[in-house]
Amino acid sequence: MTHPTRDEIELPAVLHALSDPVRLKMVRYLADAGAEQTCRSFDVPVTKSTCTHHFKVLREAGIIHQRQQGTARLNALREEDLEARFPGLLDTILAAA
Amino acid sequence: MTHPTRDEIELPAVLHALSDPVRLKMVRYLADAGAEQTCRSFDVPVTKSTCTHHFKVLREAGIIHQRQQGTARLNALREEDLEARFPGLLDTILAAA
Repeated sequence: MTHPTRDEIELPAVLHALSDPVRLKMVRYLADAGAEQTCRSFDVPVTKSTCTHHFKVLREAGIIHQRQQGTARLNALREEDLEARFPGLLDTILAAA
Repeated sequence: MTHPTRDEIELPAVLHALSDPVRLKMVRYLADAGAEQTCRSFDVPVTKSTCTHHFKVLREAGIIHQRQQGTARLNALREEDLEARFPGLLDTILAAA
């Protein structure tokens, strides 16, 4: 799984990734959880493959970090990277959502 | 030309509209100008029809207001509406861009 480095995180990709209501809900959930979560822990009305797709979009945009642990894929919000790159952006968007 | 009312402005549509680098540049230009602008006044590397399309996306998302004056279509940023609906969002995104 490839992840953009902090400097490679681009605003258009971040905004695009967050422009989907389901992905926004996932990010909100990760922000509230404050820890790694698996796909199945999310209370969103989508199939597992759609969930996997949404996480891929979030990962490629640099919003989440994914790692494999056995058969589980763990997802964590890249809050520090996002805050360093675009100060206040994530908080403002989550407050607006 | 239809415009969403302030209450009809939705976050996913706003983020999607701003997820395009050209549209983000247009919004930045409108914010700096602080007044209505015509399509041709924008220094963006796109054709007139593409420019028209981008403005339509911005209008339908509730980011700009468009009005016809003779043969010219004037575009203005809906800063007050956006600030009321999503406090700090536009400024934070423009600061990040």
